[in-house]
Amino acid sequence: MEPVSFENVLIRRGFWEQRIRAVQQTTTWACIDECERTHRVDNFRRAGGMQPGGFEGIYFNDSDVYKVLEGVAYVLTQRRDPALEAKADEIIDAICSAQQKDGYLYTYFILNTPEHRWTDMNLHEAYCLGHMIEGAIAYARATGKRKWLDAATRALDQMMRVNGPEGQHWVTGHEELELALVKLYRYTGEEKYIDYARWLVEERGHGHLKVPLSPEIDPSNPAYCQDDLPVRELTRVTGHAVRAMYYYSGVTDLASILHEEGYAAAMDRVWGNVVPANLYLTGGIGQSASNEGFTRDWSLPNLTAYCETCAAIGMAFWNHRMNLLHGMRKYADLVELEMYNGILAGISLEGDRFFYVNPLASVGAHHRQKWFGCSCCPTNLIRFIPSIGGYMACTDGDALVINQFIDSEAEIAVGEKRVRLCTTTDYPWDGNVRFTFEGFEGDLPVRLRCPGWCTEHSLTLNGRAVVDYAEGYYAVTVRAGDALRFEMAMPIRRVKADPRVREDAGRVAVMRGPVVYCAEAVDDPGLPDEYFHAELALDRDAPLREEWEPGLLGGVVTISGGGVRLVPYYAWDNREAGAMCVWMKEA
Amino acid sequence: MEPVSFENVLIRRGFWEQRIRAVQQTTTWACIDECERTHRVDNFRRAGGMQPGGFEGIYFNDSDVYKVLEGVAYVLTQRRDPALEAKADEIIDAICSAQQKDGYLYTYFILNTPEHRWTDMNLHEAYCLGHMIEGAIAYARATGKRKWLDAATRALDQMMRVNGPEGQHWVTGHEELELALVKLYRYTGEEKYIDYARWLVEERGHGHLKVPLSPEIDPSNPAYCQDDLPVRELTRVTGHAVRAMYYYSGVTDLASILHEEGYAAAMDRVWGNVVPANLYLTGGIGQSASNEGFTRDWSLPNLTAYCETCAAIGMAFWNHRMNLLHGMRKYADLVELEMYNGILAGISLEGDRFFYVNPLASVGAHHRQKWFGCSCCPTNLIRFIPSIGGYMACTDGDALVINQFIDSEAEIAVGEKRVRLCTTTDYPWDGNVRFTFEGFEGDLPVRLRCPGWCTEHSLTLNGRAVVDYAEGYYAVTVRAGDALRFEMAMPIRRVKADPRVREDAGRVAVMRGPVVYCAEAVDDPGLPDEYFHAELALDRDAPLREEWEPGLLGGVVTISGGGVRLVPYYAWDNREAGAMCVWMKEA
Repeated sequence: MEPVSFENVLIRRGFWEQRIRAVQQTTTWACIDECERTHRVDNFRRAGGMQPGGFEGIYFNDSDVYKVLEGVAYVLTQRRDPALEAKADEIIDAICSAQQKDGYLYTYFILNTPEHRWTDMNLHEAYCLGHMIEGAIAYARATGKRKWLDAATRALDQMMRVNGPEGQHWVTGHEELELALVKLYRYTGEEKYIDYARWLVEERGHGHLKVPLSPEIDPSNPAYCQDDLPVRELTRVTGHAVRAMYYYSGVTDLASILHEEGYAAAMDRVWGNVVPANLYLTGGIGQSASNEGFTRDWSLPNLTAYCETCAAIGMAFWNHRMNLLHGMRKYADLVELEMYNGILAGISLEGDRFFYVNPLASVGAHHRQKWFGCSCCPTNLIRFIPSIGGYMACTDGDALVINQFIDSEAEIAVGEKRVRLCTTTDYPWDGNVRFTFEGFEGDLPVRLRCPGWCTEHSLTLNGRAVVDYAEGYYAVTVRAGDALRFEMAMPIRRVKADPRVREDAGRVAVMRGPVVYCAEAVDDPGLPDEYFHAELALDRDAPLREEWEPGLLGGVVTISGGGVRLVPYYAWDNREAGAMCVWMKEA
Repeated sequence: MEPVSFENVLIRRGFWEQRIRAVQQTTTWACIDECERTHRVDNFRRAGGMQPGGFEGIYFNDSDVYKVLEGVAYVLTQRRDPALEAKADEIIDAICSAQQKDGYLYTYFILNTPEHRWTDMNLHEAYCLGHMIEGAIAYARATGKRKWLDAATRALDQMMRVNGPEGQHWVTGHEELELALVKLYRYTGEEKYIDYARWLVEERGHGHLKVPLSPEIDPSNPAYCQDDLPVRELTRVTGHAVRAMYYYSGVTDLASILHEEGYAAAMDRVWGNVVPANLYLTGGIGQSASNEGFTRDWSLPNLTAYCETCAAIGMAFWNHRMNLLHGMRKYADLVELEMYNGILAGISLEGDRFFYVNPLASVGAHHRQKWFGCSCCPTNLIRFIPSIGGYMACTDGDALVINQFIDSEAEIAVGEKRVRLCTTTDYPWDGNVRFTFEGFEGDLPVRLRCPGWCTEHSLTLNGRAVVDYAEGYYAVTVRAGDALRFEMAMPIRRVKADPRVREDAGRVAVMRGPVVYCAEAVDDPGLPDEYFHAELALDRDAPLREEWEPGLLGGVVTISGGGVRLVPYYAWDNREAGAMCVWMKEA
């Protein structure tokens, strides 16, 4: 199946409009200010001779600038903003000024030790290049301006001359370039980018990864960088969670495009290991801070859960691609889980503060921050949230597949047709969704995902029941002017963990629709913060009631009863500091 | 009362010899290596023109070098070590090379912006000067070498010319110089140092503290630096715990020396606020990480307890001085509590790893580290532990007062007498202590502290019971050749917290003698780490038994029964990583 690009989906009201507005009005400028304050942009100016001075900050800081610009591109698609676009153009000029004559563009080595270019696979040159390519494509799609994309492809050409089948071995220490190359292929149609992505994937697992300058990486543990096995031999998830997710995203893309059965089979095996043995209820992945990644199957501590925001975003990237590959609901279910929980918790309702780490319980000391030394998470949120429209639908030949329920107006090329799809919904608070179709002639086959959490649902076409339902999808044929009404019952659900998870034994969590709930000490006073997660108890038999509270936390449905009051997990830590837990004792 | 200086007490066997040996063999060299690796020593070499380069690190890094040398001085008193002394001499040469013509010696400003000397009261010039004076006195006492002390007094003279009654106002943003000036007075007899210490104390609380260059300090909250009230008006503890303790130590010294009733009364009021409303069972103080200090009375969370190691050391400093001022047992009880718990937990048994933060519960993520960016705690432990002999006894006119039970040989000037006091004990594991007295003529009045934790005790002089006991002290007169035998019953004690501490409600902790015990998950498996501190339960009625385990944790008495196995709190996190708690549920 083919994805629908973000710029074809306009989000004008509802749950996601509220989030995108916060990103546009607050997050973009806050992140730009931080990139300026911390000299991330200055590094380009200095490398380009526009300003005196040396490199400042962490070696991969270029990527944050690229990611912020990518987010700006998505925002500009949703809403014109000349001031924001002018600032982006100025930063892009600085980036391009830093490009060397041969195309090379990575300020850490340009400013520090040019002689060390392409000598240390773990110093993130290829990672930053991938982000530059993603950002430049987004900016070209959003604005039509190609200056940055031209620079990015020249930088890529330089890399391909040095590292490749004719050059030296190269294993991307932090994966990212692979999926960016697929995007570049999709945008340009040039197959050399796919060939190179495949070469990069095939480089892994043969002991080529050398890290002479980065002693913090243990070279005896290649699994940290997913370099322990060749791609076709993968059976389980290992190492750094974000690296793993970006890698799998690229491999899954290639499996789709190249019809590589060995890749697809490997991804299926790894997916079956991640889900559910290494997945938190919220969609969080990567249990441990020590490797920012995976540990042991079924070891899922809540209080010390690392669950980096970027890893949840990576999980959405990967599952989006697994869904394109296989067209199965379970992958879109995970994208949805990340959208409303694991990812969204990473950003404050105002859009100005961020979590890097997303535990499922807190004793009160975990709070959002404005920025981080390694600030990958804010700069990933800024690009994920305004590109949410890209996850709504995809196409399968002449059929349209609707996966997510986002109030929006989309214009989608389905085969030869250009379909105007208007979606109206108060999802995730309400299970009713209305779709109308315009702008094309003839029959349009539509498949509509019914989420895995939903057990009672119905679909009507212009008021008549649709009965063709199998394996999580309704199938229906529509014509211009038709309206679909999808109704999902959205009862409060008490959920239990797999008994192999010791930390959740005897405990219960609450969900409604795709939204995971949590208890915050500010709503449930009485226990000291340090015992809140251990002792807060939900009465086993008490009825739970829901309430729409428009004035609370930007408007949420709360759940009360059985001795507790619960709010959506994504909205926690937006009031007073305090303890929090998702899994409650069952009393 | 007058203190007995560290160099008069030699510790040759027993509990403290083991700790001092680890400091000598491991900690000193480890800290010297870190000071070299992090360019803390190089900053002096650079300021002195011995090496090219600018200032590196945190502005107050000079103090760590001073503190390490102070520790080295104490170690050299206990045991000669020519290699260590040669290295110390080399570092002292580097320090002295950095001294400016006018005496100024603080590398941060010398190397960065000499024009900003003495303009920002929070950039720790006076704090570092205090540590230099303390270190230089210790080195002179230990080795007889005065080069460094001469440099330190010249640096102090420079400061006194600029800041003082004839110069500008100066509030020490981080106190420390006050108590150092008292030490310098005691060593030199020069009253100008006492006058200056008093001037510094009197400067506080009048709004003079200006912090133009240090935006991280909130100038609207002078209580952070104890600058909210003049000294005589103090009623409660505020702000940064280490600053507070160093300040109170200096004020208490002055109260003793100057007989300043206003100072003494203020210290009594503040002490009554710290103890017990802001004191953990372990002696830890300073509940919060956000101000590294105090919060609200009776708010004593265990898991997030900050309890900086330096604050516990500061608490020992202050209570040692309160004991000199008032001669009351309760102060020496607190010194003892810190010695065996709050302070000692800060260093690993090997002497190579440190805690900056000392919570009373952990979910498994809190571990000792080799060094810290701000590494005040390792460099405070290195000077506290080998100077422990200085806390054993003091003199009160012609009487000797014995406060702590340390296996040692001491030579103490008591009035005109030179008393050789030999102490033999396996304290804190065993409550029997034998004292013998030699080397003097006539009668020596002795007062012996009986610890507050002890309810059943006896003292014999050459086998005959001593019955003169009042307010925690035995009084007895000895002659040369006499032997005292002190016997303290040391039963296992179950202790409860004040009911105003919510976190400890329904909970119990275990002590034996002065030692606080804790449970570690490695000994009590079965609970997930994140619930260990909340759910570990001690049976209310079960008998508890003690066992001397020479092979465990360097030799400890363990306590078992009622479903748990306990080890001394100071020895935790010396085996596998895992959860820990002091307060257990009472079941």
